[in-house]
Amino acid sequence: MKTVGIAGGTGYGALELLRLIQNHRHLKVVALFSHRQTEMAIYEEYPHLTGINNLQLEMLHEEAVKDLDVLIFATPKGVAKEWVHKLRRDDLQIIDLSGDLRLSAEEYRTWYKEEPASDRILGEAVYGLPEWNRDLVMESRLISNPGCFPTASLLALLPLKELLRDTSDSTIIIDGKTGVSGAGRSSTPLTHFSNTNENFQPYKTGGHQHLPEIERYASAMTDKEVKIQFTTHLVPMTRGLMCTVYVPVNKEIGAADIRHAFASAYQNEPFVRLLPDGMMPTTKGVYGSNYCDIGLYYNENTGWLTICSAIDNLVKGASGQALQNLNAMNGWNETEGLLGHPLFP
Amino acid sequence: MKTVGIAGGTGYGALELLRLIQNHRHLKVVALFSHRQTEMAIYEEYPHLTGINNLQLEMLHEEAVKDLDVLIFATPKGVAKEWVHKLRRDDLQIIDLSGDLRLSAEEYRTWYKEEPASDRILGEAVYGLPEWNRDLVMESRLISNPGCFPTASLLALLPLKELLRDTSDSTIIIDGKTGVSGAGRSSTPLTHFSNTNENFQPYKTGGHQHLPEIERYASAMTDKEVKIQFTTHLVPMTRGLMCTVYVPVNKEIGAADIRHAFASAYQNEPFVRLLPDGMMPTTKGVYGSNYCDIGLYYNENTGWLTICSAIDNLVKGASGQALQNLNAMNGWNETEGLLGHPLFP
Amino acid sequence: MKTVGIAGGTGYGALELLRLIQNHRHLKVVALFSHRQTEMAIYEEYPHLTGINNLQLEMLHEEAVKDLDVLIFATPKGVAKEWVHKLRRDDLQIIDLSGDLRLSAEEYRTWYKEEPASDRILGEAVYGLPEWNRDLVMESRLISNPGCFPTASLLALLPLKELLRDTSDSTIIIDGKTGVSGAGRSSTPLTHFSNTNENFQPYKTGGHQHLPEIERYASAMTDKEVKIQFTTHLVPMTRGLMCTVYVPVNKEIGAADIRHAFASAYQNEPFVRLLPDGMMPTTKGVYGSNYCDIGLYYNENTGWLTICSAIDNLVKGASGQALQNLNAMNGWNETEGLLGHPLFP
Amino acid sequence: MKTVGIAGGTGYGALELLRLIQNHRHLKVVALFSHRQTEMAIYEEYPHLTGINNLQLEMLHEEAVKDLDVLIFATPKGVAKEWVHKLRRDDLQIIDLSGDLRLSAEEYRTWYKEEPASDRILGEAVYGLPEWNRDLVMESRLISNPGCFPTASLLALLPLKELLRDTSDSTIIIDGKTGVSGAGRSSTPLTHFSNTNENFQPYKTGGHQHLPEIERYASAMTDKEVKIQFTTHLVPMTRGLMCTVYVPVNKEIGAADIRHAFASAYQNEPFVRLLPDGMMPTTKGVYGSNYCDIGLYYNENTGWLTICSAIDNLVKGASGQALQNLNAMNGWNETEGLLGHPLFP
Repeated sequence: MKTVGIAGGTGYGALELLRLIQNHRHLKVVALFSHRQTEMAIYEEYPHLTGINNLQLEMLHEEAVKDLDVLIFATPKGVAKEWVHKLRRDDLQIIDLSGDLRLSAEEYRTWYKEEPASDRILGEAVYGLPEWNRDLVMESRLISNPGCFPTASLLALLPLKELLRDTSDSTIIIDGKTGVSGAGRSSTPLTHFSNTNENFQPYKTGGHQHLPEIERYASAMTDKEVKIQFTTHLVPMTRGLMCTVYVPVNKEIGAADIRHAFASAYQNEPFVRLLPDGMMPTTKGVYGSNYCDIGLYYNENTGWLTICSAIDNLVKGASGQALQNLNAMNGWNETEGLLGHPLFP
Repeated sequence: MKTVGIAGGTGYGALELLRLIQNHRHLKVVALFSHRQTEMAIYEEYPHLTGINNLQLEMLHEEAVKDLDVLIFATPKGVAKEWVHKLRRDDLQIIDLSGDLRLSAEEYRTWYKEEPASDRILGEAVYGLPEWNRDLVMESRLISNPGCFPTASLLALLPLKELLRDTSDSTIIIDGKTGVSGAGRSSTPLTHFSNTNENFQPYKTGGHQHLPEIERYASAMTDKEVKIQFTTHLVPMTRGLMCTVYVPVNKEIGAADIRHAFASAYQNEPFVRLLPDGMMPTTKGVYGSNYCDIGLYYNENTGWLTICSAIDNLVKGASGQALQNLNAMNGWNETEGLLGHPLFP
Repeated sequence: MKTVGIAGGTGYGALELLRLIQNHRHLKVVALFSHRQTEMAIYEEYPHLTGINNLQLEMLHEEAVKDLDVLIFATPKGVAKEWVHKLRRDDLQIIDLSGDLRLSAEEYRTWYKEEPASDRILGEAVYGLPEWNRDLVMESRLISNPGCFPTASLLALLPLKELLRDTSDSTIIIDGKTGVSGAGRSSTPLTHFSNTNENFQPYKTGGHQHLPEIERYASAMTDKEVKIQFTTHLVPMTRGLMCTVYVPVNKEIGAADIRHAFASAYQNEPFVRLLPDGMMPTTKGVYGSNYCDIGLYYNENTGWLTICSAIDNLVKGASGQALQNLNAMNGWNETEGLLGHPLFP
Repeated sequence: MKTVGIAGGTGYGALELLRLIQNHRHLKVVALFSHRQTEMAIYEEYPHLTGINNLQLEMLHEEAVKDLDVLIFATPKGVAKEWVHKLRRDDLQIIDLSGDLRLSAEEYRTWYKEEPASDRILGEAVYGLPEWNRDLVMESRLISNPGCFPTASLLALLPLKELLRDTSDSTIIIDGKTGVSGAGRSSTPLTHFSNTNENFQPYKTGGHQHLPEIERYASAMTDKEVKIQFTTHLVPMTRGLMCTVYVPVNKEIGAADIRHAFASAYQNEPFVRLLPDGMMPTTKGVYGSNYCDIGLYYNENTGWLTICSAIDNLVKGASGQALQNLNAMNGWNETEGLLGHPLFP
């Protein structure tokens, strides 16, 4: 058994890690760190864990981490970048779920309005999207876990390398929708039930920090300078995220080529499910699971391809993907602890 | 007082007409027609009307219509086209909320899989989007009321006539989202609460009958052959519809030109509210009302404009717009009966 | 036109007053007071009022009130009791929507943990439930508007005066359920969407401040010392409130007597709708309206009567009832401004 | 590995069995029976099972069952009673999730309006509430799995044997609330999203078939003739069930006695969690899990005890309890396959 500590112990990311790791044969969560709450047990903060988990919340500090095999930051932006360089050891695997290590130093300053982590840390961190760069993940001790919108978007774009229309005009449109848990646990007017229920609302238009992350890695994947028009919307539901991605494809490409590209890319991937022609994913179809479901619609009349990509924002969009990365880093079966059925209905 | 009859008397469209017309100074609903239910009063079908409305449901027939001033078809496709030519009179104003009179004969056959209305009827019917063609509406006795997605989409596109990028490649992307009431009143697996709640799902991808309607009138508005990539999604809420519209604009156009075009187009429109820079509409902001709220975001980096357009699908997307048309046709104030506040929260 | 000022101008109660009074022929809202926000217009706080209402929020003070005909406190507890004695005038009608004036001084201290209003103010305030004490309301200049649970509960109990079982053991059970807007506008863990959605949860068990209010007025109505076992639950919806009330009835009473008592009590009431045998109300059946719908089920086997009583917590449970009281106080038709249909679906 | 067949293979009960048994070390589902759908795989009916489960749906018949170790009826009423006597074998364990075997022959005729199973079958069937009659369950080959409301209600009442007030007048009040999945998978006006969302509605008042089931077993548990006043309500959520149970207790009993009775009854039960004083359960606290959470509030002023009892209607209220029974019948750890965390948020 490897021992795991989780920073951000009272957040939703930590909750999902506890739920998923409970079924894991090689991992055990032994520490929960929080700066908000200490001197209380996690079940006091989350009564649904009564009788299940008695871990005490404690402050993160170097001593507390020294016997851990794994440390996961399920923290808001700004925490991991302060701690990673202090806590790293050769025999400590670190995964950061926040955006701290995903961008270049310059992009981070622009979009997160804070000083970034050191260049050395940024250089070492591997972007943990196993479907793209599994080999690097397996070698890494420091993983930058992708954001929720980037995960759904990049899995929609990864197979398109050869198919993207190649004109100076070409822009990819990503219309993203997320459940309210994506906005985190803090109580704000935006997350107030009476405001959010029976409401569909764009938020952070033009300013979402996932935009540079998607552009950066989509460009890396396709060897082109990809430009994205990105909108995010809040859906009156707790979990679930969908990106409807619109891509102009090269004129000579047909529907069969597109399907073939996706089928090839994902035929051996345990968590990406390419749906048959005429079928689109739903967020409920992946509820509570680590799947990313993808559906395709190519419109010959316009030459645009519509890709719908659905994940559970808290699982494949955060904690499940972290566990998938951890499995890869340790040479375990990548699905270990992650094969629970989607919860339906 | 002019007398109104409503066909499709047990549907949601009729309900909204009853609610809105109740406040109208010149109209009174005196007949409700239904082929599903007769021999019962509307309040037996809809208990919330207990003590409010005792109208009996009756079969639609020529005799029943002969004393009416106004007849509104709030029926599924296929009903109006059978009845309009039989019932029309010089002194009868007819409004059809269904899709029967919105397309060319050929398009109707393709998308609705039925024989269309006669050419004469199709030729006489005026598409009732007053913000675009108020003058024609005012002259008309036969109105084809726009669909819900077309209303939100076309109001987003109307001011763009001069701004649309003019290349052979250019396609407009419309990402539509609607509450479940848009799927009508019939009980189907799609509208089942346990399937729809906590779910976000595309539907009818590539096959939505509102696509040709949007292309047809967007082309008419802009004098260009507009191509649309259109996706519709079901949101776990009852009311509300948003179209996120992505438009490639001409290179020489700037954000100020765009805002000016929208401001000019809508400065005197009572029901279109152009939101200030940095603000996007929400569906709850128009809940139960006839407003269409519009927000703009121009991305200089990509050259694409994002327009969010929100309506209540049952009001501005159906019954409210019908009433607005009726007001225009009769020379009344166009806002008569339509100034109720959005219901919030 | 009488002029109205509203204290608590950014709360849900004020919003509903604005919505309802808009349709009122004799009232006009001319001032909105807030201690949280000033120097901004109401539509900046609530964008759905853009283009509809431009009133500036201002601080409440004596000067600002001096030309008003009506002042409504739609404030949290503790505000009205500080201001009423300072602002009252012979020609100012005051309605308090908070709990400040509903209890005896002693009860207020126990349940609200604050010093009550003066005995004089408490003595003058009339509990504004017109179905019970219309005559007093009509004479009053100072109305204490009932709470939401008390309104639904007392309207369920009012006709029972003669029917209540008369034993020392007899207790009435009130099982209350409310939408989340009942918890007000502040953003708290309880009102967070991710916590409240897909959740049904009791709250304030045994400690809800509406319990003494119900016991006090139920006792006054029935001339008995009524004891209540009261539970309140939060329903994952925004609006709507239902009390399921369980009453042990006297042995000699039958179902027909019970129905007769309710029918007699409410036959001339414009806002209480007694549903026929076998039918129970729903909260959606009164959505956005001032109705209170009541259904009855008498179980001969147990001798207990079940009464379901449904209101919109923000209308008949707050602002609508305030307007109904105001209509009564001014000798206007009690339904003025209050006849909008319930919004369905 | 024991092999399991499930009748009612396309219903929600079967879905939950598939989800739970996937994690079970001794069970494997090998057959899904359906009379509605055959010639298709379960993942075609439920796309969320794509890539997870390829079982073909087949007709139930004697041959198909002959090699099974376990047969579970997750069928509507009326199916199990027709099949059990044909299919039973000494080495076949049968569990019926429907109401077919829960009542006496006479009660079944009254409440289910059909002919009951034979006296012999009814006599052999053991009511599978392990917290009450574990010993009988362990000996049985034919289990009648409790209904969802009865499970929550009976677990609330079981510890009260000695505490119930002992007067001719005494009635227990059970105010039940369930998510919409409790109404099953068929698409009806009641389960239509637009009707159910933002709505709280009683249903089947006085006529719910779970009433006689609760009265029968509550009486058996307490050796008294227990009378129940029972109301069921539909909550706008998919999963979750709460019973708020009101019990008049003997005068000499105090809060400490009550707590002691519950603590004693459940101290060794793995799935019943007694919450501390001042805390009430929520349905989300047991979401997707087999827990039943119980909270207590004793009101000295009225002498009534309020018990809130929360379960997931599809787990402890149906499929989870079936698996718990199956574990007990086979001498396995009763928690096998059932320790997944509640899904939160």
